[in-house]
Amino acid sequence: MRISELSRRAGVPLSAVKYYQREGLLPEGVRSAPNQVDYGDAHVHRVRLIRALLETGGLSVAATKDVIAALDAEDAPLAETFRVAQHAMATPRTADSTPSDAARQRIATFARSQGWEVTDDNPGIDAAARALDGLRAIGFEAPDSYLGAYAAAAATVAAADLRALSSLATPDQVAELMVVGTILGDPLFAGLRRLAQQDVTRTLFPTDAKRAPS
Amino acid sequence: MRISELSRRAGVPLSAVKYYQREGLLPEGVRSAPNQVDYGDAHVHRVRLIRALLETGGLSVAATKDVIAALDAEDAPLAETFRVAQHAMATPRTADSTPSDAARQRIATFARSQGWEVTDDNPGIDAAARALDGLRAIGFEAPDSYLGAYAAAAATVAAADLRALSSLATPDQVAELMVVGTILGDPLFAGLRRLAQQDVTRTLFPTDAKRAPS
Repeated sequence: MRISELSRRAGVPLSAVKYYQREGLLPEGVRSAPNQVDYGDAHVHRVRLIRALLETGGLSVAATKDVIAALDAEDAPLAETFRVAQHAMATPRTADSTPSDAARQRIATFARSQGWEVTDDNPGIDAAARALDGLRAIGFEAPDSYLGAYAAAAATVAAADLRALSSLATPDQVAELMVVGTILGDPLFAGLRRLAQQDVTRTLFPTDAKRAPS
Repeated sequence: MRISELSRRAGVPLSAVKYYQREGLLPEGVRSAPNQVDYGDAHVHRVRLIRALLETGGLSVAATKDVIAALDAEDAPLAETFRVAQHAMATPRTADSTPSDAARQRIATFARSQGWEVTDDNPGIDAAARALDGLRAIGFEAPDSYLGAYAAAAATVAAADLRALSSLATPDQVAELMVVGTILGDPLFAGLRRLAQQDVTRTLFPTDAKRAPS
């Protein structure tokens, strides 16, 4: 198919498809005539995958490239593919936003107190520790019961992710869902959390209470 | 205090403090002499808040501005402050990433089947629907049991957030934690999820199984 049909079938604008190609995310098609390049079903699948990672997952182009390279390395151990997906988080990590040692320590200790076997280079430690630091910056010292509720929720979701992986037939499908599910599980959860929040916080402002005067 | 001490006390680089000021996120200090501007404790608090939203929360400058304006509007109903925080999600929403109607419908129906009272403009519907579309793009049709596990986790976290809010003394503290907790709860959860994932997926590749040949 031509690139215009690739765009149509993937449901992604032509300008975006060309952008993916310029950024080296999408392999070239096959030149079938001096003025014509042909694309196949694998390209349609790849365009949809890139879009999901970049736009829904909020990954950078560089992170998307890493994830796709890991998926394409077919002889790589699944554990390595998974490691790349885990590190490709959408949260920005600028040079000066290193979390405090105290927060890192608390998260690592807390994870182990849940019986989780985790390594010190798991990027979740820094992500969660930065959030603790941010909450502390406004004067909220998250109690253990608060962290515990978040950890229980995380365990529920991780178990559901694992069950979904176990339901798949081929190792390639497992690798792809492992990567995409790790990344898109974040906005899926964040969206459902906004919905659950709206429900529980109805009780907080039953009469549209004003904040001031207190 | 001078701006250099403001930077030191907030634990944020001077260049970042000046950037916040240029972007209109941080109010001016008080000019105490022709060549000197004084800052107070409120500025330290504000710099920390801005940093938490921008860097840990991953918000854009525009979204951070909206959130801060909502916090500063002291006579606004809490429900309105909350609505602004709910809409200030870090996930990018580009013009061409509208979720499918089928996915939106499924999320809205699913939320109501959980007994949640939600409105159609809740931004969580689009965020979760886009994630479903992304999973579908790689051929994974999330079953109800998968969505149900994510929804149960979201309800657990929303209840913990509510308990944390109920523990606070003043309406201003409630407003601030409502906003910052809504935004930083996402990376806190995402981080703990990475840790829980590492634990449960150990069972998936006990011997560093290769993907190919399958």
